[in-house]
Amino acid sequence: MEHLTSPRLVLHEQRCRQNIKAMCDKAKRLDLKFRPHFKTHQSQMIGEWFKEEGIDAITVSSIGMANYFAEAGWKEITIAFPVNIYWVDQLNTLSKKTELNILISDIEIVDRLDADLQFTVNAYIEIDSGSDRSGLKFHATEKIERLAGKIQKSNKINLKGCYSHAGHTYGARSKTEIEQIANEGLKNFTALRNVLSSHAGLEFCWGDTPSCSILENFEGIGAISAGNFVFYDVMQNNIGSCGLDQVAVALYCPVVSKKEESKELCIHGGAIHFSKDQVQVDGKTLFGQLVDENWQPVEGSHIRALSQEHGIVKVPDALFSKVNVGDFIIILPVHSCLTAQAMGMYYTNDGHNIDHYAQKSRPD
Amino acid sequence: MEHLTSPRLVLHEQRCRQNIKAMCDKAKRLDLKFRPHFKTHQSQMIGEWFKEEGIDAITVSSIGMANYFAEAGWKEITIAFPVNIYWVDQLNTLSKKTELNILISDIEIVDRLDADLQFTVNAYIEIDSGSDRSGLKFHATEKIERLAGKIQKSNKINLKGCYSHAGHTYGARSKTEIEQIANEGLKNFTALRNVLSSHAGLEFCWGDTPSCSILENFEGIGAISAGNFVFYDVMQNNIGSCGLDQVAVALYCPVVSKKEESKELCIHGGAIHFSKDQVQVDGKTLFGQLVDENWQPVEGSHIRALSQEHGIVKVPDALFSKVNVGDFIIILPVHSCLTAQAMGMYYTNDGHNIDHYAQKSRPD
Repeated sequence: MEHLTSPRLVLHEQRCRQNIKAMCDKAKRLDLKFRPHFKTHQSQMIGEWFKEEGIDAITVSSIGMANYFAEAGWKEITIAFPVNIYWVDQLNTLSKKTELNILISDIEIVDRLDADLQFTVNAYIEIDSGSDRSGLKFHATEKIERLAGKIQKSNKINLKGCYSHAGHTYGARSKTEIEQIANEGLKNFTALRNVLSSHAGLEFCWGDTPSCSILENFEGIGAISAGNFVFYDVMQNNIGSCGLDQVAVALYCPVVSKKEESKELCIHGGAIHFSKDQVQVDGKTLFGQLVDENWQPVEGSHIRALSQEHGIVKVPDALFSKVNVGDFIIILPVHSCLTAQAMGMYYTNDGHNIDHYAQKSRPD
Repeated sequence: MEHLTSPRLVLHEQRCRQNIKAMCDKAKRLDLKFRPHFKTHQSQMIGEWFKEEGIDAITVSSIGMANYFAEAGWKEITIAFPVNIYWVDQLNTLSKKTELNILISDIEIVDRLDADLQFTVNAYIEIDSGSDRSGLKFHATEKIERLAGKIQKSNKINLKGCYSHAGHTYGARSKTEIEQIANEGLKNFTALRNVLSSHAGLEFCWGDTPSCSILENFEGIGAISAGNFVFYDVMQNNIGSCGLDQVAVALYCPVVSKKEESKELCIHGGAIHFSKDQVQVDGKTLFGQLVDENWQPVEGSHIRALSQEHGIVKVPDALFSKVNVGDFIIILPVHSCLTAQAMGMYYTNDGHNIDHYAQKSRPD
C-alpha cells in the first residue's frame, strides 16, 4: 500500500457499515419499506452488508446493473430510470426470476410494453415533485390519472405506485434548507394520494440522500430509496446531509511532484479518477477534501484543480515540508458515486478487493 | 443501431482521419517531430491510422497506457506525466523493448531512479511555461540548470530535452487569444535554450491542441505532442481551436422521456457517459452540443443538465414534436478525452467496434 503506482479507491468498511445500519434502523423506526439505491456502490459484496440488515428489495439505475444484482440473488429490483422500450428482451429474461419494478411517465409506451412483455412487471409512475429532471410534474394531475388508468387496464403491467427523486434537495446548504425543500416536495408528492384514490394499495416511494438523512417525518410515504448515504461525500457534507467523519471512501493518490513556489503538491489523481464534480465553499472551487492518515480533514488544504490525470493540492507549509515525492495523500471525493464509477473497484484497509459493476479490464 | 438500449459512443472515421492527416501534414511542413498524445483516443486501432501517416513516436499519460501501446508495437513512447518512482519495475520491463522518454522535475528522484533502472531511459525536464500545473517554473533557471546537470551525471538517465504542456491556452476564447497565450508561453519555454546551452542536442517538445491547431510558427521548438485534436470537442470549438464540423466523436443517446411542459427531452446519457465537463456560452452552461443525423448543430438546442445517468436536453418545438420516446439523439461531447475514457470503446457508423484502453468488462 505504501508504494502506490496509481490512485487507489479505499473503502472504510466500518464507516460504510455504520451508514448502512443507521439508514436501515431509521427506515424500521419510521415504518418505511427501504429499497436502497445501489447506483452509488454498485457492489455485490457491499450489497451483502445490506442483506445482513434485513434488506430484501433494492433500486438500481440501469438494466445492466439490474442484471448484475439479480446474479447476486436479489429477488426484487426497482430500475429507477425511465424504462427504455428496447429493454424488453432483457426485461423478459430478468422478470423470469426477479420481481421487477420499472418507472413510467410517458403514456405512449404502455401499449408497446404491454404487447412485448412476457411476464408481469410492476410499474411506478414517476413524479417530478420539484427536481425538474424526469417524471410527470406533480401538478399535471390529469395526465397522472390518465396514465394510472392506462396502466391499470394493461395485461402485463401492474400499477405499483408512484416514485419520486427529490434531486432539488442538492441545492440546499443546511439541514434547515434540506427540510424546507424536502417537505415542500413531499407535500406535492403525497397530494397525489387523493388524485389516485380510486387505485387501491399504491406505494409512494421517495429517494434522495439529503432528505432521507435529515427528515424524521415522511407522512404519506410508504418507502424510501436513498443511495448515496452508503458512502456520503464532500458534496453531501456541503449540503448538510452528513459529517465528513461519515464519508466512507477516499482516493489514495501518489504525490508525483512538489511545486516549491506555491507549496502545492502535484498528485496522480485527476478527472478520470475523481470525476469532475466540484463544490463551491467561500468562493473557492473544491474538487475534494484532503484528510490525514486517520481520515480527519487537513485544515488549510485545497484541492484546487484537476485535469485528466493530474490533481493540484494546496497544503499547509508544515505538511509540504514533510511530504516526499513517492508518498501518497488521502482525499475524500466530492461525488462518491462518480468516483466509484470511474475507479471500477475498491480496496479495503485490510488488503482485500471489493467488486464494482463498472469493473475495468485494465489497470489505470 | 436504431434500437439503442444504452448510450453509444460513435466515431466519425472520416473526420478523425482528416484531423490526423492535417496535424501530421502541419508537423512535416513546419519541420517538427510529431509525438502525438494518445491519451485522448487511447486506441490501438486509431494508433494505426497515425502509423499510416508516418508517425513512429507517441506520447501517453500513464505507465499502463504505455504498456498498452508497446503491445501494439510502438517503439518510442513518452510518458508525459511526472514519473512515479514506484513505476521502476514496470519501466524496467518496458524499456527492454521500447525507447522510453519520461518527465522529471524533482531533482531528489534522480538518484533513486538511477539506482533502480536497469536500462537507459531518456528524460525531459518538465517545464511550466505558464499553465501552473506540473513542471519547474520557466523562470526557475537555477533549478532547471541544476536538474539538467544532475541528470547528465546519472548513469541510466539520458537528458533528452525539455517538455511543456501549455494548458493555459484552454483559457482562450478566440484564435487571437490562443496565439497570444501560446506565443508568450513559447517565448518563456524557448528562452531556456540559452540557459541550457552547455547541453548539446536538446529537444524542446511542446503539447496542447489549441496552440498546435492555430500557430504557424514554433520557433525554437523541435517537437509537438498535441492529442485532443484527433477528435476535438465542444470545448475546443469554444476555445477557438476547431470548427464543430471537425468533432469526430458523438454520443448517441436514447430518448427515454419527453417533458411536455418545457419541451425538453430526458435522455439516457449522463455524467457517467459524458463526464461532467462543461462550457459557458452566453451565460448558459452547456454539457454538449446537439447535432442532427449528419452531425450538424441543431440551432436553439441546449444540453442543460446531467446527473449520473440522465441528461436533460432543450430542443426546438418542431424537433420536440417529431421525436418519439425510443428514438436516439446525437450529442457532441464537451471534453472528448473524458467521454472516451468513460465509455471505454467506440462504434463506427459502419458497425464495427474500436478498442479503448479503459475497456469495461460489463455493458452500461
